[in-house]
Amino acid sequence: MSQPIVFSTQRYQYLKEDLMQHAGLQWESGLISIRDFPDGEHYHRIRSDIRNKPVILLGGTIDDQETLELFDLANGVVQCGASSLYIVIPFFGYSTMERAVKQGEIVKAKNRAILFSALPQTSQGNNIIMIDLHADGISYYFDGNIRPVHLYGKSIVERAALELAGGEPFVLASTDAGRAKWVESLANDLHVPAAFVYKRRISGDETHITAISADVKDKMVIIYDDMIRTGGSLLHAANAYKQSGAREINVITTHGLFSGGSFAKIRNSGLIKQIICTNSHPSALAIHDPLLRIISVSDLILSYFRDIGLHG
Amino acid sequence: MSQPIVFSTQRYQYLKEDLMQHAGLQWESGLISIRDFPDGEHYHRIRSDIRNKPVILLGGTIDDQETLELFDLANGVVQCGASSLYIVIPFFGYSTMERAVKQGEIVKAKNRAILFSALPQTSQGNNIIMIDLHADGISYYFDGNIRPVHLYGKSIVERAALELAGGEPFVLASTDAGRAKWVESLANDLHVPAAFVYKRRISGDETHITAISADVKDKMVIIYDDMIRTGGSLLHAANAYKQSGAREINVITTHGLFSGGSFAKIRNSGLIKQIICTNSHPSALAIHDPLLRIISVSDLILSYFRDIGLHG
Amino acid sequence: MSQPIVFSTQRYQYLKEDLMQHAGLQWESGLISIRDFPDGEHYHRIRSDIRNKPVILLGGTIDDQETLELFDLANGVVQCGASSLYIVIPFFGYSTMERAVKQGEIVKAKNRAILFSALPQTSQGNNIIMIDLHADGISYYFDGNIRPVHLYGKSIVERAALELAGGEPFVLASTDAGRAKWVESLANDLHVPAAFVYKRRISGDETHITAISADVKDKMVIIYDDMIRTGGSLLHAANAYKQSGAREINVITTHGLFSGGSFAKIRNSGLIKQIICTNSHPSALAIHDPLLRIISVSDLILSYFRDIGLHG
Amino acid sequence: MSQPIVFSTQRYQYLKEDLMQHAGLQWESGLISIRDFPDGEHYHRIRSDIRNKPVILLGGTIDDQETLELFDLANGVVQCGASSLYIVIPFFGYSTMERAVKQGEIVKAKNRAILFSALPQTSQGNNIIMIDLHADGISYYFDGNIRPVHLYGKSIVERAALELAGGEPFVLASTDAGRAKWVESLANDLHVPAAFVYKRRISGDETHITAISADVKDKMVIIYDDMIRTGGSLLHAANAYKQSGAREINVITTHGLFSGGSFAKIRNSGLIKQIICTNSHPSALAIHDPLLRIISVSDLILSYFRDIGLHG
Amino acid sequence: MSQPIVFSTQRYQYLKEDLMQHAGLQWESGLISIRDFPDGEHYHRIRSDIRNKPVILLGGTIDDQETLELFDLANGVVQCGASSLYIVIPFFGYSTMERAVKQGEIVKAKNRAILFSALPQTSQGNNIIMIDLHADGISYYFDGNIRPVHLYGKSIVERAALELAGGEPFVLASTDAGRAKWVESLANDLHVPAAFVYKRRISGDETHITAISADVKDKMVIIYDDMIRTGGSLLHAANAYKQSGAREINVITTHGLFSGGSFAKIRNSGLIKQIICTNSHPSALAIHDPLLRIISVSDLILSYFRDIGLHG
Amino acid sequence: MSQPIVFSTQRYQYLKEDLMQHAGLQWESGLISIRDFPDGEHYHRIRSDIRNKPVILLGGTIDDQETLELFDLANGVVQCGASSLYIVIPFFGYSTMERAVKQGEIVKAKNRAILFSALPQTSQGNNIIMIDLHADGISYYFDGNIRPVHLYGKSIVERAALELAGGEPFVLASTDAGRAKWVESLANDLHVPAAFVYKRRISGDETHITAISADVKDKMVIIYDDMIRTGGSLLHAANAYKQSGAREINVITTHGLFSGGSFAKIRNSGLIKQIICTNSHPSALAIHDPLLRIISVSDLILSYFRDIGLHG
Repeated sequence: MSQPIVFSTQRYQYLKEDLMQHAGLQWESGLISIRDFPDGEHYHRIRSDIRNKPVILLGGTIDDQETLELFDLANGVVQCGASSLYIVIPFFGYSTMERAVKQGEIVKAKNRAILFSALPQTSQGNNIIMIDLHADGISYYFDGNIRPVHLYGKSIVERAALELAGGEPFVLASTDAGRAKWVESLANDLHVPAAFVYKRRISGDETHITAISADVKDKMVIIYDDMIRTGGSLLHAANAYKQSGAREINVITTHGLFSGGSFAKIRNSGLIKQIICTNSHPSALAIHDPLLRIISVSDLILSYFRDIGLHG
Repeated sequence: MSQPIVFSTQRYQYLKEDLMQHAGLQWESGLISIRDFPDGEHYHRIRSDIRNKPVILLGGTIDDQETLELFDLANGVVQCGASSLYIVIPFFGYSTMERAVKQGEIVKAKNRAILFSALPQTSQGNNIIMIDLHADGISYYFDGNIRPVHLYGKSIVERAALELAGGEPFVLASTDAGRAKWVESLANDLHVPAAFVYKRRISGDETHITAISADVKDKMVIIYDDMIRTGGSLLHAANAYKQSGAREINVITTHGLFSGGSFAKIRNSGLIKQIICTNSHPSALAIHDPLLRIISVSDLILSYFRDIGLHG
Repeated sequence: MSQPIVFSTQRYQYLKEDLMQHAGLQWESGLISIRDFPDGEHYHRIRSDIRNKPVILLGGTIDDQETLELFDLANGVVQCGASSLYIVIPFFGYSTMERAVKQGEIVKAKNRAILFSALPQTSQGNNIIMIDLHADGISYYFDGNIRPVHLYGKSIVERAALELAGGEPFVLASTDAGRAKWVESLANDLHVPAAFVYKRRISGDETHITAISADVKDKMVIIYDDMIRTGGSLLHAANAYKQSGAREINVITTHGLFSGGSFAKIRNSGLIKQIICTNSHPSALAIHDPLLRIISVSDLILSYFRDIGLHG
Repeated sequence: MSQPIVFSTQRYQYLKEDLMQHAGLQWESGLISIRDFPDGEHYHRIRSDIRNKPVILLGGTIDDQETLELFDLANGVVQCGASSLYIVIPFFGYSTMERAVKQGEIVKAKNRAILFSALPQTSQGNNIIMIDLHADGISYYFDGNIRPVHLYGKSIVERAALELAGGEPFVLASTDAGRAKWVESLANDLHVPAAFVYKRRISGDETHITAISADVKDKMVIIYDDMIRTGGSLLHAANAYKQSGAREINVITTHGLFSGGSFAKIRNSGLIKQIICTNSHPSALAIHDPLLRIISVSDLILSYFRDIGLHG
Repeated sequence: MSQPIVFSTQRYQYLKEDLMQHAGLQWESGLISIRDFPDGEHYHRIRSDIRNKPVILLGGTIDDQETLELFDLANGVVQCGASSLYIVIPFFGYSTMERAVKQGEIVKAKNRAILFSALPQTSQGNNIIMIDLHADGISYYFDGNIRPVHLYGKSIVERAALELAGGEPFVLASTDAGRAKWVESLANDLHVPAAFVYKRRISGDETHITAISADVKDKMVIIYDDMIRTGGSLLHAANAYKQSGAREINVITTHGLFSGGSFAKIRNSGLIKQIICTNSHPSALAIHDPLLRIISVSDLILSYFRDIGLHG
Repeated sequence: MSQPIVFSTQRYQYLKEDLMQHAGLQWESGLISIRDFPDGEHYHRIRSDIRNKPVILLGGTIDDQETLELFDLANGVVQCGASSLYIVIPFFGYSTMERAVKQGEIVKAKNRAILFSALPQTSQGNNIIMIDLHADGISYYFDGNIRPVHLYGKSIVERAALELAGGEPFVLASTDAGRAKWVESLANDLHVPAAFVYKRRISGDETHITAISADVKDKMVIIYDDMIRTGGSLLHAANAYKQSGAREINVITTHGLFSGGSFAKIRNSGLIKQIICTNSHPSALAIHDPLLRIISVSDLILSYFRDIGLHG
């Protein structure tokens, strides 16, 4: 199979560069022309010759513009005759709107799956590769026209945890009941105790921690959550662990969105010693602060391509 | 819209009769001929004239034979020219195999969704109505050819809980972490405390309760779980609540499968005072024991049809 | 058939209200809850009960947010069980990017057609109604899952022209060669002479008028164009007609986008006496200036629904 | 193209082994884990790494469990990312229920075709290979998502006939009118006379031979039928040929189902000297009797794979 | 449901008129404009307003022009917004090319099914109604986008047979082995003996009758065949029955194609006393000869529409 | 990738031979058997073994028979198991019926796109390659199952123009307003002036030239039109250019249909000195006249296949 050509949306340009560096010299960097018009339309042109070649396209469904740019580029890749298409979505936006809790709620995660399932097919098929989805079920929301792949960042998290612990014992902790099973499984793999907090949602965003299930007194606590958005749940949990006597709290998350002023809020709380997140979302990249260390998902992505024979 | 004709698979005949009684006289009972051949094939013939009429078809994906009978009847309904098709699946089998935990695991819940999405369409569309799915996401596994509807039996559970409590205070409890959020929400609606147990799976089926998050001492505990299959988790949880001082333990479940000799095992444990389940699975109907009370899902199903204008 | 429920995207709320007023009392106004999150996601919930009822949804593909809001609302309408869906797109964005001129250009008009063709179907089918498309072919870009309808605003334009002329003779004129055939046909229907300008595109946006095909000296000229975006072509043409002796220049356009500061630029040129456009694009509504008169497309839309038996 | 990995359903394990032996060393044997649960569900996991590799999957639609196992394994192969899928169905169950004779009969052969057409596609497409279908038309019941291939076992039958005859003259005979054309064509190819019996179906299974069209007196008769299920037709025909003076009767069939106690019934009739069938159905393999000789379809299957360049 | 509008292809205009007369006054006759261009293209315009109304379209796949006219009109009906479409194909051309006998033969019956399955759908679905298909399986060649209906003309044939016999005894006979089962079943229903001839195809069109299975001496023979094309098989069979002593031979066929000079050949043979065929193919209508009596399929078609509630 | 096998419809046999000569020795010529039956049916058999090989199929939608032959051959190619299919349509018939001008007009260009989109897919996908479409939008009428490619014959036209001019200055001219933009662009590329005529269609075919936009006096005029059918527009335009003083008129067209007696009419007019067209339509090939020079599209087609790696 010939070497792939790699493209990205505008805001994931950084990840493309990072991936290309990891991949070595054989992968070709795809060229695009982009222009924005004052009426809200955008112009895209694929400048590389991709006919009958495999294409990797990086982007995230992080907001409306990026979502449509990703969709439009993917359509362009098919229209231009690529032999296969691999859409890599490091962070799948709307993954928390994955079901209707109340009658009439619009299930955006399904809509995004419908969107990418609607792409016409390249001659050897379309694939969509996602990392640490908030809800596993989302992989199965796509229909038969596209082959979804869910990459688990477990090894990244484990490595980060061991590094943060630096040989000391620690407790792996979750921010809420929804991740309890995930953290339990991770703790079992790392042979450390697991801790959980349980919050009761009183109304809207107001929540109240009702219980902690494990002993964290005088221990290092490492909280894992798949994503940090407003940081609300994280700070509630960290506070509860602190009040239960935790000596030091560190945080690992796959997707660091830190939306609004949430990173400042977390730093100003003084509760967290270190946060590690991946470069799956461009927002994390914009933060330059010793509190935050960013590690790359490029190796995880490359190992997938190596496994299917598209080695970098 | 004309009145619907109602069919069922063989093992859901009881629910068809129950539903017809609830629906009143206007719904027509559909006639089918069935013959089984020694080589493993089956013969089905729809004897009612269903051309250009709405059809309701009851059945569950409870084992291979029922699954294919439901699929074959549904295909027959389409082939014979019904105007619309409503497949009512009170218990959706394989709902716990809704994602691959290990590489290579075959996701049966998706496969069943693919199966029913493959039905050719009646002139006014196919619908699939399911009750208390183990994983909400499953509704979104179906593709665009069929409209999935998820009916929540919350009102049934709440009514059963109030009845069991008989005016006394009680704690609503879960059997494991996976249902924590559901039980918490239900407890909030009932304005009662919620209790959770957390089990650590040691290997295969062997699990160990590590923590209980709420005070159950001297209280009536009502455990809710969406389904009881082997009863293993239920008994572990009941035992833990008992050892934490619960005065009396009752159980509500939507789907009572009680597979193998599990019902006897539960009764013999002496831990449970009363179990309430619905008639969503034929296995529950086969048990005649004062320990078990069965309530019907027919009203829940009928209220859906009333809402869409196909009133009984 | 029951009366439809009408929804719109946020920026087309004004057209929904206008349409409801024209439709009379029988149509129901649909209710939606919307919330925007700081991370770029949006929350939508359909609050009306639309099960088994026809739904009309108004919106335009005018920018990324509106396009996805329209797509998400349409998906929600299907998920919630409407019997039929009529998406009314008064202005179809990207209609000028309807083919690849250079190798590798991404054809957005096709992508948008793919997007709306991807909607799962309501029981009685999905329809998309568009007004005065820039390229007729776009109707045929949609695939078999959705039925496209192209409404021509010819009668609106003709009425506007007669009103502007006030009984005086006039010449109907075009802004460039691309619309020559359309203007010719319109002029034939109105029994007036047609005028054309021919511009040579020198490079990028720089164009040069090379010829005018008809005598406009001392005459009232009414220019028709399907849309005004930057106003560049319009001003070039108006200038040419003026220099050829036109006594007075008026303008009719279906879609008034007036992007950037283009309206001011047109007004400041002093070339145009009066502009008439429809309310198909929200930008036109934001302009309050005696130079611009806005007429409604609601009657055109309603006459379509009357013809198919969904009368207001 | 890389070498394929071969899987089978549980009951076709024997054919997989036979095929692997014929194929030589280059084909890889696929590994699966299977577990059955007491509630009627099954667990399957594909243990081999099949990403981007061609997969051959053997199985038959011989009963409900096998049919769904085959469907589930096939879905798993697609979900796990195989590059192509070749489903080999040596015996296609329900091939006699290939059309509705009476109003309302459910056409199972079509339903099975719908089932396998519903599989999502591997990147290089899905194929279904069937042997000696009872009705040729069934190949065309599949839709465009899967490429059906019908392998004719004519050469196997002819070789078997020549072997049975051992150089002596013989008459090729059919069991009923439905196979008349097939036997006639086969007889023409073998340059032997063809004989036919015509039965009148009186009611249900009761039939009466009304005529024999060729002279079989003192001749060796070799009956060919595509499948033997209950053996009823075969014994009626054999009896008629015997009464018409046939010296010796032998039987060739592609698919030996021998359902119920039919093999014993045939043997006890004493009418047949030798039966040859293929290993297309596992039931035949369970019979160990000098009356029955079983020949393998592996060469037929392999020659197909050799022709398309997937040589063993 | 509103009354349908009826259209036909050019060559089936006669059947439309016949059907309209049978249907009574309520059905509306659809108007079409047609023009042929010298370069081989055709122009079609549907002049009736069919938006949201049911449409019946009559036509046959009798040659290339009719096939494409039927396909184009059907597409037009969908494009113009009919609520439902019923394509009535009295004679389905290529029904004898329903499977590949030799490797590489192109299966036209499947291709025609693909053609009509490709029609975009009306809001309440597309239907295709066919009469006395040469091979039953063809109904199942269509995919899920269109609902096939196979009408059996058995009652027409039986009525014709009783009329021909005029109270006298007769033998029902077939022209070749392929129709043996059909004729047998028909004979059983009429309580008369069945006769069969068996021909051996020597090469190409040359065939040789080898056997007759029933006594026809001094009896009236009524041959039934689903279609008469070149008349070759018919004359061979009639000749054989004559030589076996038949007193008088009559013929019933559903589809009278009589291609080339075949009708004259049949008449000149002097073998046949009377032929009855239906008006399913326009060629039969062009023959005016006392030997041929034509009966209408309109009642058969109308009874279908009456059954589904679209009564004439 | 293995070398392709090339097939064509009957009337494009000449282009297949021409293409094979240009391609060199490596491409294999595909073998087909064809027979026509008196009842209007045709028999086709693909005699080459095309399993798992790429296939190129040449043909045009020039009339009903060719259209269905192309469709049937394409279906046959898929049914026989080709790995990929490239349908080359040098002239796409019905390209002027690409939209409905009046209500109810049937859009044949869309119907033809639906036809070829309906082909089941080869394992590596279906492609359709078209040359100089009358309306660019038609490429986007195809749905996702087939990948359309539009080849522009610009280089052929430019080379022909330079050759005709023989170094002398010339004006590039169009036949009507519809091609104005195309001719303008071509003239810009050739750095020559562009001339346009504008005709007013009075009724039906009667048109009247109203204006010429450029100075053609004493100049050589080269008219370009994408196709010549009846030659009416061409002669009107040529006459107008002549009357405006053109010294000499030459014509270039991609598609020379010359339907009816139009070529004679053109020659007899004496207006045109030389016509150059391509061999995209078989009608042009039938004309042997010094007025007409025919150039081949084979190089254009081959360059496409070379670009995607299927080099001749």
